[in-house]
Amino acid sequence: MLAQEIKNRLRQIVGAQQFRDDNEALVAHSYDGTPMLQSLPEGVIYPETTKQVSEIMSVLAAHRIPLVSRGSGSNLCGGTVPVEGGVVMVMHRMNRIVDVDLENLTATVQPGLITAEFIAHIESLGLFYPPDPSSMRISTIGGNIAECSGGLRGLKYGTTKDYVLGLEAVLANGEIIRTGGKLMKDVAGYDLTKLLIGSEGTLAIITEATLKLVPPPKSKKTMIAMYKDLYGAARTVSRIIESQIIPATLEIMDNPTIRVVDDFAKLGLPRDMEAILLIEQDGEPEAVERDIDHIRHICLSELADRVTVAESREHAEKLMTARRSAFTALARLRPTTILEDATVPRSKIADMVLKINQIARKYDVSIATFGHAGDGNLHPTATTDARDSAEVHRVEKAFEEIFEAAIELGGTITGEHGVGLVKAPFLEWKLGKAGIEVMRGIKQAFDPDHILNPGKIFAKETRKRVVIQRE
Amino acid sequence: MLAQEIKNRLRQIVGAQQFRDDNEALVAHSYDGTPMLQSLPEGVIYPETTKQVSEIMSVLAAHRIPLVSRGSGSNLCGGTVPVEGGVVMVMHRMNRIVDVDLENLTATVQPGLITAEFIAHIESLGLFYPPDPSSMRISTIGGNIAECSGGLRGLKYGTTKDYVLGLEAVLANGEIIRTGGKLMKDVAGYDLTKLLIGSEGTLAIITEATLKLVPPPKSKKTMIAMYKDLYGAARTVSRIIESQIIPATLEIMDNPTIRVVDDFAKLGLPRDMEAILLIEQDGEPEAVERDIDHIRHICLSELADRVTVAESREHAEKLMTARRSAFTALARLRPTTILEDATVPRSKIADMVLKINQIARKYDVSIATFGHAGDGNLHPTATTDARDSAEVHRVEKAFEEIFEAAIELGGTITGEHGVGLVKAPFLEWKLGKAGIEVMRGIKQAFDPDHILNPGKIFAKETRKRVVIQRE
Repeated sequence: MLAQEIKNRLRQIVGAQQFRDDNEALVAHSYDGTPMLQSLPEGVIYPETTKQVSEIMSVLAAHRIPLVSRGSGSNLCGGTVPVEGGVVMVMHRMNRIVDVDLENLTATVQPGLITAEFIAHIESLGLFYPPDPSSMRISTIGGNIAECSGGLRGLKYGTTKDYVLGLEAVLANGEIIRTGGKLMKDVAGYDLTKLLIGSEGTLAIITEATLKLVPPPKSKKTMIAMYKDLYGAARTVSRIIESQIIPATLEIMDNPTIRVVDDFAKLGLPRDMEAILLIEQDGEPEAVERDIDHIRHICLSELADRVTVAESREHAEKLMTARRSAFTALARLRPTTILEDATVPRSKIADMVLKINQIARKYDVSIATFGHAGDGNLHPTATTDARDSAEVHRVEKAFEEIFEAAIELGGTITGEHGVGLVKAPFLEWKLGKAGIEVMRGIKQAFDPDHILNPGKIFAKETRKRVVIQRE
Repeated sequence: MLAQEIKNRLRQIVGAQQFRDDNEALVAHSYDGTPMLQSLPEGVIYPETTKQVSEIMSVLAAHRIPLVSRGSGSNLCGGTVPVEGGVVMVMHRMNRIVDVDLENLTATVQPGLITAEFIAHIESLGLFYPPDPSSMRISTIGGNIAECSGGLRGLKYGTTKDYVLGLEAVLANGEIIRTGGKLMKDVAGYDLTKLLIGSEGTLAIITEATLKLVPPPKSKKTMIAMYKDLYGAARTVSRIIESQIIPATLEIMDNPTIRVVDDFAKLGLPRDMEAILLIEQDGEPEAVERDIDHIRHICLSELADRVTVAESREHAEKLMTARRSAFTALARLRPTTILEDATVPRSKIADMVLKINQIARKYDVSIATFGHAGDGNLHPTATTDARDSAEVHRVEKAFEEIFEAAIELGGTITGEHGVGLVKAPFLEWKLGKAGIEVMRGIKQAFDPDHILNPGKIFAKETRKRVVIQRE
């Protein structure tokens, strides 16, 4: 437990109301969006300024007290569960848009700003901020940066890392650093901006970000294609890219997902299809027409059973509903939903989906797969029950094999959700011992006493590889 | 000097011909593209494989011998001058295109590949690799990655860092790491790929890179606009971006540059103009037409004296000649040419150009400015004579003030050329003491004995700020 003296000091910094150690606050911040993980913090603090964050860190560093910074905690990797206790720092009060600079096409924001609110404001100014994680209605920009969040528009527009030009951050010792700026180019020293993006709160606390804005596309079209042959869908994905069309969105749902989504959303989806592709293109009106027409031809030549191009905005929304409701639909099947994000080169999508189905059968668990086909970023999603420890164990074994299969296909254990607690035991599979050692050295440079989000990314023990032993 | 035993060991690894310590080899590798810097290495080695690089590093690490890895040495920051002696590793024999993957739109290459040769090969396949540093006919991909090179297409397409998906690299201790892959998304651990890009050979030796390719634009148009008022040109730049047009290229030349270029290339440029903008747009034909038309109107409304849209490919080439010959034209004026790359938010270009002119007058030196206006990345270029130490001293003082002015305007000391030796004493101005400390920690994690490119990036002493003292 935190000493009374430390609590008093923290209350002095933020005001009495903004530090809490009542049970309600502790329990509310003991978990995040990840199922089956919970650990009580010793206090919850709500800073309002960078100066306060800096002062808080000075106090915590002096006593080596762990600190977990978080936004809405919507991550899916256990990234903000305070496994070593200490203080949880909630950034929601630091939620201002500091400025939108129309001349430089940048926005400077505080980390606690809700992503969707930011996007809405930017769009009201006639501009565009592409990263659109599925959690964007609750997630914060700071959380998106900490996790390097992706989204449905990632294929064409990239992910969060492609839109952060500069950061202000507080180090473990309370010092404040500034990286980058309203600059499209800056090679003064190591790229600390990109290093902090996706570092999951283990290196520093992000207190401000300068983001790049872009002109919005002038038009958009949406289409859907349904396949009885999974490989037909996968070949369609590859052929679209090979024909040098980069769609704004290129999503896939497999048969188990289609069935569940249709049960839920009553869209009248044909339940005998092995895969559905959801495709959007945006840009100049003429180019969008040409691309959608070309894509339609590719779909048909790969024996798509049905191809529908949306005739109106409402029609397009209805088509996209199928994909957007996938997680919700799956989540209502069983008490516990585990959403993963193994990622492969896009040419390997069909192999990966089939491999996932095969692994699910081997372990007798339910896994439905959907995701960003254009990126090779798949979301195999297990529906299970946390109270059935035998089944949960089988699910875990299945995911181990899925991660292994992804790496074997030239992929990675996480495309956009982060490592956190959940994937830490598998990180060495991707990076090797030497890579992990380098990362440990970087951690040491930023946070020598390991007080920032301790227990995350670095596993106490790397899981043994079961199936495939390379080298 | 290297001990005979070490030379023998290195010759065993690469073959007798591929390690040299004759005077000719040592002198040829004692300098790079940067004027007035020279230092003899003790040996020059030409590895052919990653395994050889790893073995070489094991030998050098055991004896703490400095190693400078380089491609063609075309950098302008003294980044490959072996100031602490040791061995220079030339990557030119590792110059293969390992594979071009049309399904994933990636190319995997070795670091010694010449940039222009790579681009030519990629274009022959109907694809596009945008980073186009001015040195691309001699520079290597490995050098581009080490420096995070930019180029004329940076405004719309980004720089080298935006096109590297994965790296293979050899650490100081000889261990080999692999980062990323043929993956559009990968958040497994800290972003070591981006950390190595622009690290100027101080963290690891890049031995292979997986690069992202994109579909080429379908059409391109080129135009030129001339102004008697520098602010009119600068306002044009801002208004183009504000009207949500991102040109492929948006370059500026100031009056001193115009005069010199015209003397050299006999283009009949009007010598009374204060600024010329060179603008290219590419993309869908209809959109290109619309954008160029819109830009022409902006130029005229900002009182451009003349606006010319190229009528043919040849005409466009001729217009671009003015910009492309700027460095060559300046270089023939005096024995020594010092090209810098102070960078500011694009809204501050006119302020920065005027500031540069004012500083040049103050120190009685010749500085002409051209560069990437759309990026805010300017190249103030001093023409001087290395033998005139009094004048060279004044040039150095002028550049100090220029760097300071750039930072004061929210900019940086280097946009695309790197820190190397030349800008190391100024790096703290941009990053602050805490930022430098973090960088030192990262260096320590990768290279605890400081054998990789020692003396670079980190200055023995930070230059005192002369003019402006912030905080």
